[in-house]
Amino acid sequence: MLPFARLTVVGLGLIGSSVARAVRANMPAVRITGFDADPEVRARADALAICDDITDTVGAAVIDADLVILCVPVGAMGAVAEEFVADLPAGAVVSDVGSCKQSVVEALAAVLPNATIIPAHPVAGTEKSGPDAGFATLFKGRWCILTPAEDAPEAAVEALRTFWQRLGAEVEIMDARHHDMVLAVTSHLPHLIAYTIVGTADDLQGVTQSEVIKYSAGGFRDFTRIAASDPVMWRDVFLSNKDAVLEMLQRFSEDLSALQRAIRYDKGDELEALFTRTRDIRRSIVEQGQDDDAPDFGRKH
Amino acid sequence: MLPFARLTVVGLGLIGSSVARAVRANMPAVRITGFDADPEVRARADALAICDDITDTVGAAVIDADLVILCVPVGAMGAVAEEFVADLPAGAVVSDVGSCKQSVVEALAAVLPNATIIPAHPVAGTEKSGPDAGFATLFKGRWCILTPAEDAPEAAVEALRTFWQRLGAEVEIMDARHHDMVLAVTSHLPHLIAYTIVGTADDLQGVTQSEVIKYSAGGFRDFTRIAASDPVMWRDVFLSNKDAVLEMLQRFSEDLSALQRAIRYDKGDELEALFTRTRDIRRSIVEQGQDDDAPDFGRKH
Ligand SMILES: NC(=O)c1ccc[n+]([C@@H]2O[C@H](COP(=O)([O-])OP(=O)(O)OC[C@H]3O[C@@H](n4cnc5c(N)ncnc54)[C@H](OP(=O)(O)O)[C@@H]3O)[C@@H](O)[C@H]2O)c1
Ligand SMILES: NC(=O)c1ccc[n+]([C@@H]2O[C@H](COP(=O)([O-])OP(=O)(O)OC[C@H]3O[C@@H](n4cnc5c(N)ncnc54)[C@H](OP(=O)(O)O)[C@@H]3O)[C@@H](O)[C@H]2O)c1
Repeated sequence: MLPFARLTVVGLGLIGSSVARAVRANMPAVRITGFDADPEVRARADALAICDDITDTVGAAVIDADLVILCVPVGAMGAVAEEFVADLPAGAVVSDVGSCKQSVVEALAAVLPNATIIPAHPVAGTEKSGPDAGFATLFKGRWCILTPAEDAPEAAVEALRTFWQRLGAEVEIMDARHHDMVLAVTSHLPHLIAYTIVGTADDLQGVTQSEVIKYSAGGFRDFTRIAASDPVMWRDVFLSNKDAVLEMLQRFSEDLSALQRAIRYDKGDELEALFTRTRDIRRSIVEQGQDDDAPDFGRKH
Repeated sequence: MLPFARLTVVGLGLIGSSVARAVRANMPAVRITGFDADPEVRARADALAICDDITDTVGAAVIDADLVILCVPVGAMGAVAEEFVADLPAGAVVSDVGSCKQSVVEALAAVLPNATIIPAHPVAGTEKSGPDAGFATLFKGRWCILTPAEDAPEAAVEALRTFWQRLGAEVEIMDARHHDMVLAVTSHLPHLIAYTIVGTADDLQGVTQSEVIKYSAGGFRDFTRIAASDPVMWRDVFLSNKDAVLEMLQRFSEDLSALQRAIRYDKGDELEALFTRTRDIRRSIVEQGQDDDAPDFGRKH
């Protein structure tokens, strides 16, 4: 049995178009309606035929839905909900895919006080954005975290769990605040640091930009991939998950200072001990299927 | 014409075994002799048949060479040269593949005052180590930087240039000090930061290690790849290129503080401007063939 029959996807970028494609591939009987604020994105989604219908207003998109998934930047969730609140059917479940949850929960609850809101975050993505970047297998083998309020209707939570499982994801339930702390370290801090180091390299005097690019295979290029992620999406994530991000940043800075001292005072044993410990974490990630063991991410050589 | 006819590779790990394999593949007439301090590595290299001969002492390995390439951690270069100085033929060129150059140049010049020393650094690698990790195409399309002294014999420099070109690399000549500054930003700083953040995540209270691992696909797992690199190799790099690494770290820390402030005071425009700029650098790296444009490094999804 299908957990939902009529899905509306709002925001047809990387994640929204991947949700639509994955639903088409795994639950072909679901009717998919799409909307995006950008007319060019709507036209492109139409040409790619990733939805059954694309509407010109978000109100028209939700009017018949039993599940609405918001796939817009986290800072836009509240505004987009305001636009469709009048048209939302009473029984519909409203969900999202935002990378942080506490701020989204608050924004949606304020605008949609009577709706059934079950926030979600599929921990999967690439550095690309827009409707062409999506693909149906993006969520396969990845985790999707649901952060329902304590009083959320059990049936709706279970239906959304089934929905994501049908797209190939494993589902975990978590408190929104805890989610934001965990993701601050596994996703937001890495992005922040990648953006910083790429900026540092770009600003250098004494080393030209063309040298930075030529010799990037020494490690730098890995950071540039993450630092090529969507600027608006990430601006919103950092501002919306400010407290957790700043806390993680503080801890990171302290650890970096300790390492700096170890280098300055030739503490080779300390360095080697840390570098040995970090290897083990990599091993666990590979063992648990969250990354490929192929050297260099399996890049062609 | 072959630039060299009898090659000795000292240190048969990732890079040494890749050099041997690449020479076998591209210049099969070259006779390859190998040595490694670790008897198990020697046995493994023997079983893999990546050299024509494996010797039990480094002296025996170099005795007949016209090119000796040292592929050991940078902190071991001087000690290994001391072991073979008495057996080194007068006309042989001594080179290396160390990730930093100034300290290696000084160490080798002190131990081998009469030898022709042409240091080199192929900017290519993976996070794996040991003789099984090497492969013949590692250097293809990557840069190899030579850092000869000003008075180095032109013919030897040109022979080594040809050697690396035959392995598929593009060759650049650079001052050793400048090399160390460039690589501090394109390779050493990224590794240092990756080690730090993986350590930070490992130490967290409130977020369990299993959560860090489960949700690592949000970005963290990219850092763990780099932070799985060989601990001894990297300990040596940071200690040997201390000044340049500490300088880059200082700049990075300042930039990170600026970003921290931008988040704290809700300066969304500043964040977005930086995140847009870093995207362009990624584009240049892909355009210049130093990385794959496939999303997510081309990982399977
Ligand atoms: N990328 C990832 O790796 C990843 C992973 C997990 C979760 N997420 C989350 O997924 C969401 C979408 O990210 P994405 O990567 O798919 O970004 P994306 O490719 O940039 O797509 C977002 C789309 O939403 C549209 N949009 C923006 N504001 C809107 C509004 N008010 N009403 C309707 N549409 C609007 C954008 O149109 P414009 O062209 O006008 O901007 C764009 O087409 C974000 O909340 C993000 O945090 C992302
Ligand atoms: N990995 C990279 O991405 C990369 C890239 C460019 C350049 N490099 C440089 O390449 C060099 C080798 O790195 P690698 O990645 O190939 O490391 P690796 O896989 O660990 O191999 C190094 C080998 O050298 C052996 N060794 C250590 N000390 C020795 C000594 N005194 N005499 C003889 N053999 C000795 C080691 O034996 P044990 O088993 O006893 O340790 C090991 O088998 C380093 O200088 C590094 O900076 C590395």
